[in-house]
Formats: sequence, structure tokens, C-alpha cells
Amino acid sequence: MEVYNKSLEMHKEKKGKFEICSKIELKNQEDLSLAYTPGVAAPCKEIAADKERVYDYTGKGNLVAVVTDGSAVLGLGNIGPEAGLPVMEGKCILFKEFAGIDAIPICLNTQDTDKIIETILNISPGFGGINLEDISAPRCFEIEERLVEQLDIPVFHDDQHGTAIVTLAALINAFRVSGKKKETAKVVINGAGSAGMAIGKLLKAYGFAQIVLCDSKGIIGPQRTDLDRYKRDALTWSNQTGESGKLKDGLIGADVFIGVSAANVLSKEMVETMNMDPIIFAMANPVPEIMPEDAYLAGAFIVGTGRSDFDNQINNVLVFPGLFKGALEARASTIHMGMKLAAAEALADVIPSSELRSDYIIPNVFNKKVVEAVSEAVRKAAFSDDKMLSDPKE
Amino acid sequence: MEVYNKSLEMHKEKKGKFEICSKIELKNQEDLSLAYTPGVAAPCKEIAADKERVYDYTGKGNLVAVVTDGSAVLGLGNIGPEAGLPVMEGKCILFKEFAGIDAIPICLNTQDTDKIIETILNISPGFGGINLEDISAPRCFEIEERLVEQLDIPVFHDDQHGTAIVTLAALINAFRVSGKKKETAKVVINGAGSAGMAIGKLLKAYGFAQIVLCDSKGIIGPQRTDLDRYKRDALTWSNQTGESGKLKDGLIGADVFIGVSAANVLSKEMVETMNMDPIIFAMANPVPEIMPEDAYLAGAFIVGTGRSDFDNQINNVLVFPGLFKGALEARASTIHMGMKLAAAEALADVIPSSELRSDYIIPNVFNKKVVEAVSEAVRKAAFSDDKMLSDPKE
Repeated sequence: MEVYNKSLEMHKEKKGKFEICSKIELKNQEDLSLAYTPGVAAPCKEIAADKERVYDYTGKGNLVAVVTDGSAVLGLGNIGPEAGLPVMEGKCILFKEFAGIDAIPICLNTQDTDKIIETILNISPGFGGINLEDISAPRCFEIEERLVEQLDIPVFHDDQHGTAIVTLAALINAFRVSGKKKETAKVVINGAGSAGMAIGKLLKAYGFAQIVLCDSKGIIGPQRTDLDRYKRDALTWSNQTGESGKLKDGLIGADVFIGVSAANVLSKEMVETMNMDPIIFAMANPVPEIMPEDAYLAGAFIVGTGRSDFDNQINNVLVFPGLFKGALEARASTIHMGMKLAAAEALADVIPSSELRSDYIIPNVFNKKVVEAVSEAVRKAAFSDDKMLSDPKE
Repeated sequence: MEVYNKSLEMHKEKKGKFEICSKIELKNQEDLSLAYTPGVAAPCKEIAADKERVYDYTGKGNLVAVVTDGSAVLGLGNIGPEAGLPVMEGKCILFKEFAGIDAIPICLNTQDTDKIIETILNISPGFGGINLEDISAPRCFEIEERLVEQLDIPVFHDDQHGTAIVTLAALINAFRVSGKKKETAKVVINGAGSAGMAIGKLLKAYGFAQIVLCDSKGIIGPQRTDLDRYKRDALTWSNQTGESGKLKDGLIGADVFIGVSAANVLSKEMVETMNMDPIIFAMANPVPEIMPEDAYLAGAFIVGTGRSDFDNQINNVLVFPGLFKGALEARASTIHMGMKLAAAEALADVIPSSELRSDYIIPNVFNKKVVEAVSEAVRKAAFSDDKMLSDPKE
């Protein structure tokens, strides 16, 4: 495909997508004596006396580490840390372009859960936040959980929560357009990896009553004996009626299909068994679970995908820049559920209700209002969970 | 002091001395599809097929991690990783300004030797080189040794080798001016930490025959029972005549004093006992072992310090940018002794012999010829040790 050849050529020419730029002139001896020795001893001493001042005198507060172990890169799988680097560099420049955040790639030479956690803990002092990226499930759950517990800076696994937040935002608007109600609608999520799990939990927290989660073997239900602890935990918030069977069984009478799975797993016949005006988010990349054209032919009312060449592109880029911006501005120690929900609602609200249509439920990634709205909402929500903190911008 | 207040103010205003800049425009959907998904999959696949191609498609080949554990920052001691960050940020912008190298600070939350090594090994895939900084002796020796063994990218502890190389360069020119000979001159090094050890070993490799190393307890000799393994090893290249006593005893008849120790430890009386036309490098910062004025009064022929407000500033900034540039360009897997010696000779040679004077033995840090000369020499020397490699620029 043309885009691949052009991208390869561009990568070969640039040899890296970011560079370090000095914010300070270094043209003479005085410049050097202020930025480096002997002057630099002054901020060092201030921080040594009170560690919190690292936010006053360094870039820590605006610096995010984009960390991967290369185990689940794009749809390419476990291609290793070096091969994951082009994606991490890309993410870093998106952080800067969309939110002014400085981000640097850290590609890890280990896929051992304990070693990943220890390494990130060890490098954390210089960073204001940690963005985990393309780490395979179920390790990604434990890695994030334990880092959140142990670090006082935000840790966010974008493949989980970025995807969940943008999906919820799209669903909020899809429901506004379709008139469906979260209290009564049935949502089927296909894919029980990092994205599917996080989508389910976020939808539940938002108030969706009826969620059924499927993996490649079918519906995740109490009858299954092959579930790991994360999939068993999912039964606390999904499949309350104890359904069993395959994806096609779960879809009968469903209002929403959310696919974070694989190409072409959703057939027209399955869509036809769904409830009236079904909503189809077919987000497998680059080939979705069903092509939008086929979904519409089978009666879909709203179709979203991960792709930019169709309407309703459900893309993480809408979330992580604003979310980190808000969290860093608040100097949040964690990104809690209230912040994620606020991000989704703010993102949905970027489109005025008068402009909502079945083919326009989610803003374009270049819509300048997105980062502002999401970061503002996240920053405010950061303080709602802890009454001890007050928002310096209020 | 004025410089400290100004530096503090500048650090507070800037909040970080570097930022990430994208080398690629991200203004529309096509830009995004080339730099990120789906196009980025193309370089990922190429690298997955052949890891070496990471140098073709990413910034790895020009990216250096500046790593500290905050245990020996400037003259401030063990102030911790956060307080060390302003120095590391400063180093990063120096790398960029002087050599066009992208460098990022990594401040470690551990001072355990094994954990430091493992952490650096774990984050290494994205970096073209590792600059160790402000890690206290003797841990710094083992950390560097083991990393050099295990990594296929250059690892360089600047406090050791950067200091050693710039010192040797200054000494080469000091000997040209004074007419002293390395085969017969006696060199006394005061300070047996990271810098002193490395200076001694490099001087020995260059051909200085008579080196005496002192620590705070005096001359390091065979009679001492309190030596760690690194100081015992130093007896293989220093003090061949088995001297004992204090610094003042070692200095009797010496041609060169090299201080990487503490303020005011060298008295005029001691200088007066040295050989004719003594050379004094008093590099303790910010207050040298002896003030230049006093050294000259006591008969010194050449005086160098670490400070920019005196002549003959012996400053690491003259070395590390060009040294890494040469090593990265050669894609050297290590920085071997031949490269260090070549760097020192090239740096000395930047000053034409016709311009050498007792108060001008080392180039100014803003002399544009320095990086070019050092990097060229290091690049060439990189290939001299391994006949299997050939220099792509030849």
C-alpha cells in the first residue's frame, strides 16, 4: 500500500521523528554558567532541600515516558523493543503536537512483569507521568495496577483506558442520536484483551447495565473453566444473566457491538439478529470486524471504526494528549475513574447536540477544541476525589 | 553569589531546559498516517525482520541517555535523583548545542549497583549510547565495567574519562610549552575517586612513566592496608618506587600536580618543594586546591583550573560532545583506550604550536574546531581496534 512505502521512505530520511531542543541560549560563558556549572548548583540545592521543588525548577512536570516492551505493537504482535520504537517516537510527537507535552520513548529489553515494574520505578524520578504502550494482556493489567499503587505520578496504559475513554465518548453521542438508554441497552464487547476489559469497566462505571464480554472462544460466562483471574473478575461487571455460547449467541437482541478483536469476525447475518438500529463500533485495525458498507446493508444505524478513511473514527489520539495535560496540570498522583469518565463526557460534548448525526458522533482528531475540553475536565475531576487538594487554577 | 541567584531565577522561569521538537509536520490526516498508524507499521516490520535497521528508521543512533543516581552531583554529594535533574538537563542541552546529539536525562531511584546496571540494560534498546554521570566511586567503576561488557552501544562515565581526556590534552600542551618529558616527569594526582583513577590510567596509557596517586589519607602505596580493590589495582600503574607518606611527601621533586580533590589542599609551601617550572592543575570546583595567584607566587609555570574565570579552563565540555559524536558516527560498540587517547591528542592539537603559551594550553569551550577535531579523531580510532570494521566515511 502506498502509505507504507511513503512512511518507510519518510522514516529513512528523518532517522527519528523527534529531536531535543534547548529552551535556553548557550552562546557564551555566562549562558553556560547559568544553565550548567556553577549556577546549576542553586536549583539542585533547592530540590535537595525539598524534593517537591523539582516541579518548579525542572521539566519533570511536563515530561512523560512512553514505555513499551514491544510485546503487542499495533496489530503486529510481539515484535520486540527496537521494532516498537517507531510507534513510540510517533506517540511522543503526537503528545507534543496536540498537547505541548514533552514525551520520550523508553523501549524495554525485558518482558518480565516484575522487571518491567522495577525498571519503571527506577527511572521514574525524572518523569511527570508514565504512558504504558503496546504491552500485551494480561501482563499489562498487573504492571499498571502495581505501578499505580507504588508511584505518586500518573500511570496510564493507553491501550486500555485511552481506547475505553474514546469508545465511551462515541457511545454517549451514539445514544444521544439513537435515543437508546444505557439502563436498558445490551452491549456486546468482542475482545477480552487490554482494550476490551477497560471498555467494559468504564462503560459499567458510566452506568451501562447490560454488558456481555466475548473472547475468541465465545461469551465469558460462569460456565467457562478456562478463564484467567482477569477474565473471572470481569464476571463481577458483565454477563449478570449468565449467558453462554458464541459471539453470535450474545449478539441476539443486542443494541451495541464493540469490536476490539480481529478482521471480519462480524457477519451481516449476526448484525441482522441484533436489536433495532444497532450501533456497530468495529475497531480492529487496519481491517475492521465488518466493513461499514456491509454493516449498513445489514441494518446498522451507526458505524464507527478506527480508520481515518471512514466516518466516525474512534481514535485514541482524541484522548491521551488532553488527559495527560489535565493530569499533569493538576499534578494528579493517579488517573482515577472520575477523571476517565470526565474525559469521555467532555470529549462527547465537544460536538454540540445540534450538530450530532449518525455519521458524526466523535470529533475529528484535528479539532482544536478537543484537547482543551478534555484537559479542563480531567484537571477539574482530579480534585473531586480528594477534598484535601485544591485546584490552583480555580 | 550573583550567578546562583540568576540561575535559580532562570530555572524557575523555564521549568526545564529542553523540550521535544517534532522533526515532522503533523497538520493533517495524511501526516498522521505516515508518522503514526497505519504507515508506521512499515518501519516496525523492517526492524522486526532485522534489528540493525533500527539505526536506519529511528533516532536511536543519535540518542544518548544521561544517567545518574544522584549520588555525587557536582560538589554537592549525594543529593538524590530529583536534585540531580537540573545538572542532567544541562548536560543534555550541551550535547545538542555542541554536537547535535539528542540526549535525555534518566534519574534513577536506586543507588544499588546491581539494580542500576539492570535498569540501564533494560532501557538500552532505544539508545545509541549511555553517558553515566555523577555516580559516586567506587560503584561507578563496577557499573561502567559491567555495562561495557554487556552492552553493544558505547557506555561512558564522563566524570572518569571525560575529565581524564581533557586533563591529558591540557598536559600534552603543557609539556609542549614547558619542554618536560613524559618519560621522566613525575606526576602527582590528588584524589582517588572516579576522576583521579581515570586520569592516572589514561596518563599511563599515553606513556607517563612516573605517576603517584594520593587520596585523603596520603600516597597510595603498597604499605597501605586500607585500600579497596580499585585502589589496590592502581598500584599496577602508579607508585612503582613504593613511596609512602602524605601528599606533601609525594610532591617533593614532582613536575605536575593534578588535583581532583578539595578546596585549598595545596599550599604554596608544597609547590615550592616541586621540581623546576611545576605544572599545577587545580581542578576542584568551585574552589580549587590552590588559587592560581598563589600557585604562581610559589613558582608555578602553568596553572589550570576548572573555572571559566581563570585562564586554562580544563572543562569536560571540551570532550564529551565530540567524543560521543565520533563514537555514534562510527557506531562503535565501545569507547576503547585508543579512542580516548585519540580524543586527547586531537583536542591538544586544536591549538597550533605557534599559539601555545603557558596561559593558553587548552582551547576555549566555544571554539568550533573542538567538536569537529575530537569527533573525527574518535571516529577514526574506533575502527583501529577492530580490523573487521571499516569506516563508512573513509
